[in-house]
Amino acid sequence: MNQQELKHLLEEVQSGGTSIKSAMERLRRLPFEDVGVALIDHHRELRQGTPEVIFGGGKSIEQLRTIVGHMVAGGRNILATRLDDDAGTSLENAWPDGCFDRVARTFSLQQAPLPATGDGTILIACAGTSDLPVAKEAANTARMLGHTVEEVTDVGVAGIHRLLAHGEALERAAVVIVVAGMEGALPSVVGGLVAVPVIAVPTSVGYGASFGGIAALLGMLNSCAAGVTVVNIDNGFGAAFAASRINRRLQE
Amino acid sequence: MNQQELKHLLEEVQSGGTSIKSAMERLRRLPFEDVGVALIDHHRELRQGTPEVIFGGGKSIEQLRTIVGHMVAGGRNILATRLDDDAGTSLENAWPDGCFDRVARTFSLQQAPLPATGDGTILIACAGTSDLPVAKEAANTARMLGHTVEEVTDVGVAGIHRLLAHGEALERAAVVIVVAGMEGALPSVVGGLVAVPVIAVPTSVGYGASFGGIAALLGMLNSCAAGVTVVNIDNGFGAAFAASRINRRLQE
Amino acid sequence: MNQQELKHLLEEVQSGGTSIKSAMERLRRLPFEDVGVALIDHHRELRQGTPEVIFGGGKSIEQLRTIVGHMVAGGRNILATRLDDDAGTSLENAWPDGCFDRVARTFSLQQAPLPATGDGTILIACAGTSDLPVAKEAANTARMLGHTVEEVTDVGVAGIHRLLAHGEALERAAVVIVVAGMEGALPSVVGGLVAVPVIAVPTSVGYGASFGGIAALLGMLNSCAAGVTVVNIDNGFGAAFAASRINRRLQE
Amino acid sequence: MNQQELKHLLEEVQSGGTSIKSAMERLRRLPFEDVGVALIDHHRELRQGTPEVIFGGGKSIEQLRTIVGHMVAGGRNILATRLDDDAGTSLENAWPDGCFDRVARTFSLQQAPLPATGDGTILIACAGTSDLPVAKEAANTARMLGHTVEEVTDVGVAGIHRLLAHGEALERAAVVIVVAGMEGALPSVVGGLVAVPVIAVPTSVGYGASFGGIAALLGMLNSCAAGVTVVNIDNGFGAAFAASRINRRLQE
Amino acid sequence: MNQQELKHLLEEVQSGGTSIKSAMERLRRLPFEDVGVALIDHHRELRQGTPEVIFGGGKSIEQLRTIVGHMVAGGRNILATRLDDDAGTSLENAWPDGCFDRVARTFSLQQAPLPATGDGTILIACAGTSDLPVAKEAANTARMLGHTVEEVTDVGVAGIHRLLAHGEALERAAVVIVVAGMEGALPSVVGGLVAVPVIAVPTSVGYGASFGGIAALLGMLNSCAAGVTVVNIDNGFGAAFAASRINRRLQE
Amino acid sequence: MNQQELKHLLEEVQSGGTSIKSAMERLRRLPFEDVGVALIDHHRELRQGTPEVIFGGGKSIEQLRTIVGHMVAGGRNILATRLDDDAGTSLENAWPDGCFDRVARTFSLQQAPLPATGDGTILIACAGTSDLPVAKEAANTARMLGHTVEEVTDVGVAGIHRLLAHGEALERAAVVIVVAGMEGALPSVVGGLVAVPVIAVPTSVGYGASFGGIAALLGMLNSCAAGVTVVNIDNGFGAAFAASRINRRLQE
Amino acid sequence: MNQQELKHLLEEVQSGGTSIKSAMERLRRLPFEDVGVALIDHHRELRQGTPEVIFGGGKSIEQLRTIVGHMVAGGRNILATRLDDDAGTSLENAWPDGCFDRVARTFSLQQAPLPATGDGTILIACAGTSDLPVAKEAANTARMLGHTVEEVTDVGVAGIHRLLAHGEALERAAVVIVVAGMEGALPSVVGGLVAVPVIAVPTSVGYGASFGGIAALLGMLNSCAAGVTVVNIDNGFGAAFAASRINRRLQE
Amino acid sequence: MNQQELKHLLEEVQSGGTSIKSAMERLRRLPFEDVGVALIDHHRELRQGTPEVIFGGGKSIEQLRTIVGHMVAGGRNILATRLDDDAGTSLENAWPDGCFDRVARTFSLQQAPLPATGDGTILIACAGTSDLPVAKEAANTARMLGHTVEEVTDVGVAGIHRLLAHGEALERAAVVIVVAGMEGALPSVVGGLVAVPVIAVPTSVGYGASFGGIAALLGMLNSCAAGVTVVNIDNGFGAAFAASRINRRLQE
Repeated sequence: MNQQELKHLLEEVQSGGTSIKSAMERLRRLPFEDVGVALIDHHRELRQGTPEVIFGGGKSIEQLRTIVGHMVAGGRNILATRLDDDAGTSLENAWPDGCFDRVARTFSLQQAPLPATGDGTILIACAGTSDLPVAKEAANTARMLGHTVEEVTDVGVAGIHRLLAHGEALERAAVVIVVAGMEGALPSVVGGLVAVPVIAVPTSVGYGASFGGIAALLGMLNSCAAGVTVVNIDNGFGAAFAASRINRRLQE
Repeated sequence: MNQQELKHLLEEVQSGGTSIKSAMERLRRLPFEDVGVALIDHHRELRQGTPEVIFGGGKSIEQLRTIVGHMVAGGRNILATRLDDDAGTSLENAWPDGCFDRVARTFSLQQAPLPATGDGTILIACAGTSDLPVAKEAANTARMLGHTVEEVTDVGVAGIHRLLAHGEALERAAVVIVVAGMEGALPSVVGGLVAVPVIAVPTSVGYGASFGGIAALLGMLNSCAAGVTVVNIDNGFGAAFAASRINRRLQE
Repeated sequence: MNQQELKHLLEEVQSGGTSIKSAMERLRRLPFEDVGVALIDHHRELRQGTPEVIFGGGKSIEQLRTIVGHMVAGGRNILATRLDDDAGTSLENAWPDGCFDRVARTFSLQQAPLPATGDGTILIACAGTSDLPVAKEAANTARMLGHTVEEVTDVGVAGIHRLLAHGEALERAAVVIVVAGMEGALPSVVGGLVAVPVIAVPTSVGYGASFGGIAALLGMLNSCAAGVTVVNIDNGFGAAFAASRINRRLQE
Repeated sequence: MNQQELKHLLEEVQSGGTSIKSAMERLRRLPFEDVGVALIDHHRELRQGTPEVIFGGGKSIEQLRTIVGHMVAGGRNILATRLDDDAGTSLENAWPDGCFDRVARTFSLQQAPLPATGDGTILIACAGTSDLPVAKEAANTARMLGHTVEEVTDVGVAGIHRLLAHGEALERAAVVIVVAGMEGALPSVVGGLVAVPVIAVPTSVGYGASFGGIAALLGMLNSCAAGVTVVNIDNGFGAAFAASRINRRLQE
Repeated sequence: MNQQELKHLLEEVQSGGTSIKSAMERLRRLPFEDVGVALIDHHRELRQGTPEVIFGGGKSIEQLRTIVGHMVAGGRNILATRLDDDAGTSLENAWPDGCFDRVARTFSLQQAPLPATGDGTILIACAGTSDLPVAKEAANTARMLGHTVEEVTDVGVAGIHRLLAHGEALERAAVVIVVAGMEGALPSVVGGLVAVPVIAVPTSVGYGASFGGIAALLGMLNSCAAGVTVVNIDNGFGAAFAASRINRRLQE
Repeated sequence: MNQQELKHLLEEVQSGGTSIKSAMERLRRLPFEDVGVALIDHHRELRQGTPEVIFGGGKSIEQLRTIVGHMVAGGRNILATRLDDDAGTSLENAWPDGCFDRVARTFSLQQAPLPATGDGTILIACAGTSDLPVAKEAANTARMLGHTVEEVTDVGVAGIHRLLAHGEALERAAVVIVVAGMEGALPSVVGGLVAVPVIAVPTSVGYGASFGGIAALLGMLNSCAAGVTVVNIDNGFGAAFAASRINRRLQE
Repeated sequence: MNQQELKHLLEEVQSGGTSIKSAMERLRRLPFEDVGVALIDHHRELRQGTPEVIFGGGKSIEQLRTIVGHMVAGGRNILATRLDDDAGTSLENAWPDGCFDRVARTFSLQQAPLPATGDGTILIACAGTSDLPVAKEAANTARMLGHTVEEVTDVGVAGIHRLLAHGEALERAAVVIVVAGMEGALPSVVGGLVAVPVIAVPTSVGYGASFGGIAALLGMLNSCAAGVTVVNIDNGFGAAFAASRINRRLQE
Repeated sequence: MNQQELKHLLEEVQSGGTSIKSAMERLRRLPFEDVGVALIDHHRELRQGTPEVIFGGGKSIEQLRTIVGHMVAGGRNILATRLDDDAGTSLENAWPDGCFDRVARTFSLQQAPLPATGDGTILIACAGTSDLPVAKEAANTARMLGHTVEEVTDVGVAGIHRLLAHGEALERAAVVIVVAGMEGALPSVVGGLVAVPVIAVPTSVGYGASFGGIAALLGMLNSCAAGVTVVNIDNGFGAAFAASRINRRLQE
C-alpha cells in the first residue's frame, strides 16, 4: 500500500538503510507517482463530500447495470442522469428500492444517510413546462447532495406576474437556480429581484433560431442583472452541483 | 414622354395606323419597359406616402450635402440617419432650420406638412441608456412620418418594477417599439403585458458574448410572448417604419 | 378567494380592525402575492382576447389528449399545432367535430363563436409548395383568432410575374404574411409593392447552406424594403398572432 | 410622496371618504404605479447592499465626470470600470482621493464605510499576465463590495505545478474566481482541486481561433469539473458581483 | 382567355367602344394582371428551354408518382432528384422505361428528343468516391438537359498526379464542374490548369470540422484560382444547370 | 537553360552518350523539375490569355509602385484593385496615362491592345448605390480583359419595376453579373428572367445581421433560381474573371 | 504499358526514328500523361510505406466485404475504421482471423509483417472513458502501422493528479497523442509536461455548448502550451497517422 | 533554499528530530508546495531546452524593452514576435547586435550558442506572398531553436507546377511546415507528396468568406491527406515550435 511505502521509505531513512540523497531523489518525483496522488484524490473526495454521479447519456443498459451494481454493493448512494425510458425502467426493475423519475430522466437510490447541509433552501425556478426535465434533474441532484429544494414552475417572463406571485419563495431561498429555454430571460428578472446567488441554466427548448439552446445561453451570459452565472445548456446536474458548492458553505 | 407613347399607341390602334396584332406584341412586353414602371413607381410612392429617408452610413459629407440640397430645393421633408458628429453639424450649419440630434445621430428638417396619421400613439420603450441612440432614431423617424410618439427609458428587466410603473403608457399605446441590447428580454415582458403590436429592436449594446447584438436578436426571435416581431440589429428606422405601416392603417 | 381577501382587508381598515400601518405593510407586498397577479392575469387574457394555443411539438399523444380534453370540457375553442400524423389522427378520432389538417399539422375545433375582428383581410403569400406547412399553420391560426384569410401560393421570386399577377389580392390586404425558405427574398419584393404591414416568416426549407432556415432568416432581417418585420424560423403561429395584434386594432 | 399617497388612501377608506370598491380598483393596479415600485426598488437596493457601478465603456469623459460628480456629492462610494487612460486620468485629476488603476482600467473612490462581509476570502486566480486587466477589474470590484481578496497570477495549465504550488491559498478561499483566455482550461483544474464555489471568467486574450474569447468561453461551459459556473467574456465585474452574492451569504 | 381579353380591349379601342383614357387605365395595371404574366412566363420557359426538374427531397412516394404521372401524360421528359431507394424503385416499377440511378439518387425518363446543345463537353471531376452521388446527380442532370458529359473520378488533391493524368480531358472540356468535400481544394487546382469556366460544388462529405460541407464551401469561395464560381452544398443539379446556361450559349 | 537541358539529354540518347535506362530515370522525375513546369506555366498563361491583376489590399504604396513599374516597363496592361485614395492617387501621379477610379478603387493603364473577345456583352446589375464599388471593380476588370460591359444600377428588389424596366438590356446580355448586399435577392429575380449564365456577387453592404455580407452570400447560395453561381463577398474581380472565362468561349 | 512507351520513345530517338524536336514536344507534356503519374504514385506508396486504410463510415456491408475481400486476396494487411456493430461482426464472421474491436469500431487483420519502426513508443492519453472509441481507433491504427503503443485512460484535468501519476509513461514516450472532449484542456497540461511532439485529438464527447466537439477543437487550437498540433474532431486515425510520420523518422 | 529544506527534513527524520508520522504529513502535501514545483519546473526547462519567446502582441514598447533588457542581462538568446514597426525599431536601436525582421515582425538576438539539433531540415512552404509574415515568423523561430531551415515561396495550388518544381526540397526535408491562407489547400497537396511530418498553418490572408482565416483553418483540419496536423491561425511560432519538438527527436 502507498502510505505504507512512504512510511517504509522514511523508516529506512531513519534507520540509515536509505541515504538522504537517494530518498530526496525519490521524493522529488512524488507528484508523478501513485502514492501522493491516491492520497490527495481521496482527500479531495472527502473534502468535496459528493457522491459520484453516473452520466447515463451514451451508456448501454448493460454498462449502467454494471456500474450501478458495483456502487450498490459498496453501499453508496446512487444518482444516474440522462436515462431513457428503457434504461430507467431496467434499473428500477433491478433495484426496486430506487426511483426512476421519467420526467427528470434520473434514477436515484439512497442507501446511506445524505450529507447534512443545514437549512438553506435551493429554489429551482422553471420558465415553462417544457423546461421541466432539466429543472427536475437539478432538483433530484440537489436533493441527493443533501439539500432542501423548493420548486416553482411555469413562471416565464411573458406572464411576469406569475413570477412576482412567488415573492416569498424567492426571499426564502439561499440559492436560486433558474431554468429557461427560448430567449432565456428569466434569470435577468430573478437576478434583479433577489440578492442571493443566481445560477442560470439554458435549455435546448425551442426551435428555429433557438439553435438548440444557444439563444438562451447567450441571453443568460449577457444578463443585465449583475452577478448571474451560467452553466452549459441542459446542465441541470451542473447547476445543482454549483448550488451545492455554495449552499454547503453556508453551514460550515 | 411615356404616357404619351402609350396614348399614341392607342390612338394609332384607334385610327387603324397600327394593327391589333402589332399592338398586342408591344403591350405584352410592357412590364419590361419604362412606361409602366414609372407610373407604378409613382403610384407606389403615393400609396406608401412616405418621404425618402437618407441612410447616412458610409456617405461623405459632400454626398450628404448634395442629396439634402436637392431634396430641400424640392420642398420635401428631410430625414437623414446614422450621421456622425461632423456630418450632422455640417448639415445643421448649412440648413439652420433643421435639427441635428446628437444622440439619435439624425438630421431632420420639416418644410412641408407631415402626413396626418390620426391619434394612435407609438410607444418606444428602451431598456438601458446605452440603447438610447437606437430608440431616438426610431422616435425621430416615427415623428417625421407623422406619428405621435411617447418614450419610456431605462426599463430593463433586471429592475422589472420600473417597467411595471409605466402601465398606463403601455395601455395607451397603439403600437409598442421595444429597444434592448444585451439579452434582449424586454420585448417578451412587454409582449405579455399588452395586446397591441410589439416590434422588437435588438441593439449592438453589450460586449463579449453579445456578439454585436446577436444575443439580443436571438432572444427576441425566440420570445416566449406570442406575436412579437423583430427587425435588424440597431434598426430603429426600420422599426419606426414598420410601426408606421401599422399605425397609419388605424386611421384609414 | 383573493378579491375577497383584498375586500376583507379594506373592510378591516374601514372598521378599524386593522391599522393603516399594518395594511400598508401588506399592500406594499401586493405584487408578490397571488391576488393581484391573478386579477391582472385575468385582465390580460381579457384584453388580449386570444384562446390558449397548444404547441404540440414534443408532447405525447396522451398529454395532448389530456390537455385538449380539459379545454373541450371547458367549452373553449381548440387549436393545436406541430402535430405529427399519429397525434393529429388520434385527436380527430377522439373529437370528430374537429379537423386535423395534415399539411398544416394543426388540429382545430370550434365550440364557441370566434372573436369578431372586422373585415380586414390577412393575406398569406407563400414562396414555394414546400413552404406550405408553415403558411397553412399561419392561416389556420389566423382563422381561429377570428380573421379573414386569403392565401396565394407558389409566388417565389425566381418567377416574379407569378407574384405580380396577384396585384389585387396584395392591394386588398390589411396585413401581409410572407412565408419563404431558401434565400427568403419574397418579403423584400412584397414590402416594396404594398404599404400595409408585412410580417416575414423564414422557413427551414432548403439544404446545405440554408442551414435550416438561417439563410432565409438573415435575408429577411436585412430586407431592403423598409419596415418589414420578422418572426422565428417556421413560426407560422407567431406570424399569425402578430398579424392578429395588428388587424384587430383596425376594428376598434 | 408615494408612501404618503398609500397612507392617504387607507385613511380615506378608514374615514369612509373612499369606498372599498373604489379603493380596490386602485390597489389592484398597484404594480403598475409608481408607489409600490419605488418602495420595492428601494427595498431591493437595501437588500442587495451594493453600490451602483459605472460601466465606463462608450461613455464620454464629460458623461463620466457628470455621473461621478453626482455620486460623489451624494457621499457614495464610486467604482467605474472599462476606462481608457484619458478617462481614468481625468477622473483622478478631478477627485485626487480616488485611484485610477491603469491595468484594471477602474477608478475607485471610497467615501463611506464598505459593507461588512465577514472573513471569507475571494481568491482570484489568473492564467496569464495578459489576463490581468480582467482579474484586476474583478479584484477591485470585490474589494469595493467589501470583500477580502487574494490574488494568484500566471498559473496557466501549461505549467501545472505553478498552480499546485498555491495549494494553501486555494484551500483558504471561500470562493474562487478563475480568469483565463486562450483555451480557458484553468477552471477545470481548479474545480477539481477545491470544493468551494468556482466562477470562471473567459477573457478575450488570444488570436485567430480564440475568436475574441469564444474558445475560452466554450471551454469553461464544457468544463469536466462539476459545478463550475461561467460569466460573460471579460466580465471581471460580473464575476466579482457573483462572488459577492455568495460570500456575503456566509456572514449572514 | 387572357390573350383574348387583350385582343378584345384593343378591338374596342379600334372600334371606339372603349376610350383611350379608359384603356390606358387598364393597360397601366397590366403587370398586376394575369394576362401579361402568363404570356411572359410562357416566353421565359421557351427561352430557357429547360424541362421542369422534380426535387424529390421531402416528397412522399404518392406525391412523386402523381407529379411524374402528370408529366409523363404530357409527353415531357422527366428528371427527379434526391430520391431514396424506396421512391426510386417505386418510380422505376411504375414507368419501366425510366431509369433509377441508385448512386445519383435520380430517376430519368426520356420521352421527347433532348434539346440540341452542340458539341461542347461538360467535364465533371470528382475528388473522392464518397462525392460520387453529387457528381452523378450533376451528370444525369446535364445529360437530360442535352449535353455531352465526361466524368473523371477519385482525383483528390492528396494524390495530385491522378488529376494531372487527366490533362487531355481537362483540355477538351467546354465547362468543368468540380465536386469535392472535405477541404474542397480541387477547384483551385483545376482552375489553375484550365481557362474554361469552372463551377465548384462543395459536398457534405466529411465529419467533425467539415460541418456538413461548410469547410468545402468556404474553401471554394476563397479559391486562389481566379474566376471559380460556387453553388450550394451538394447541389449537383444546380451546377449542371449553370453549366448548361454556359454550354448552350456556345451553340447559339 | 531548361529546354536546353532537355534537348541535351535527348541528344545524348541519340548519340549513345546516355543509356535509355538512365534517361528514363531522369525523365520519370520530370514533373518535379524546373523545366517542365516553366514550360507548362508559360503555356497556361498563353491559354488563359489574361493579364496579371494586382491585388492592392494590404500592399504599401512603395510595393505597388515597384510592381506597377516593372509591369509598365514590360509593356503590359495594368489593373490594380482595392486601392485606397492615397495609393490610387500616387499611381495616377506616377503614370498620368493611367486612370484611378475612386469609386471602383482600381487603377488601370492600357499599353497593349486588349484581347479580342467578340461581341458578347457582360451586363453588370447592381442592387443599390452602396454596392457600386464592387460593381465598378467588376466592370473595370471585365473591360481590361477585353469585354464589352453594360451597367444597370439601383435595381434592388424592393422596387421590382426598376429592374423589369431594363428588360432589353437583360435580353441582350451574354453573361449577367449581379451585385447585391443586404438580403442578396437580386440574382434570384434575374436568374428567373434570363437564360444566360448569372454570376452573383454578395457585397458587405449592410449592418447588424448582414454580418459583413454573410446574409447576402447565403441568400445567393440558396437562390431559388436554378443555375445561379456565386463568388466570394465583395469579389467583383472574381466575378468579372468568371464572366470572362464564359464570354471568351463564345468567340472561339 | 507506359514504361514501355517511354522506353520506346527513347529507343526511337536513339535510332533516329523520332526527331529530338518531336520527342521534346511529347516529353514536355509528360506530367499530364498516365505514365509518369503511375510511376510516381507507386513511388509515393513505397516512400510512405503505409497500408491503405478503409474508412467504413457510410459504406454498406456489401461494399466493405468487397473491398476487404480484394485486399485480403492481395495478401495485404487490413484496417477498417468507423464500423458499426453489424458491419464489424460481418467482417469478423467472414475473416475469423481478423479482429473487430467494438469500442474502437475497427476491424484489423494482419497477413503480412508490419513495417519495422524501431523502439519509440506512441503514448495515447485519453481524458475520459467516453473518449475511448477515438483513443482506441488511434491505438489500433498506430499498431497496424507498426508502432509500439502505450495507453493511459481517464486522466481528465479535473483530477489532475491522475495524470501526474503517469509521469514515467509520459517521460518514456517518443510521441504523445492526447484525446479529449468537452473543454479539451488535457493537451495543454501534457504539452507543458513533456518535450516530445504532442498531437491533440478533440472528440465530439459532450452536449450543449460542446457543439459536437467544437469547444474541444478550439481549446486545443488555442493551447497555451507551445507547439501542440491538432487534427479534426474524432480523427483518431489521423492522429495515429501523424504520429507515425513522426515516429518512423526516428528510426531512419 | 527548497532542496535544502527537503534535505533538512530528511536529516531530521534520520536524526529522530522529526517523527515519521509528522514527516509523512508534510511530504504528502509536497505537490502543493514550492519546493517540488520549482525543481520540476526547472527540470522541465532543462528537458525542453527552449528559450523563452516573447509574444509582443499587446505589449507596450516600455514593457518590451524591460523584458528584453532582463533577458539580455542574463545572457540569454532573445526572440520577440508580433512586433509592429515602432516596437521593432526601438529594440533594434537599443540592442544593435540584434535584428528586427520587418516582414516577420520578429526581433532576434543571439548571445549564447544555439542548441545543437543535428542535420534534419525544416522546410517552410508558403502559398502566397501575403502569407510571408507568418512563414518568416516560423522560419526565424525555428532558426533560433537551432534548426536548419529551407524556404519555398509562392507555391499556391492554383499554379500546381510551381510546387512540383520543388520536388527535391520536399524530399530533403525532415519536417514540412505549410503556410497558406484563403482556401488553405496547400497542405493537402504537400501531405500527399511527402512521407515526413506535415504541420499546417492557416493564415488570416483573404477577405469576405475567409473570415479571418477560418476557411483556411477548416480546410486544413479536413485535409484529405492523412496525418496532417494543424496549429492556430497565423501561429507561425507554434508551428516552428512543434517542428522543433519533432526534429530535435531525430538527433537524440
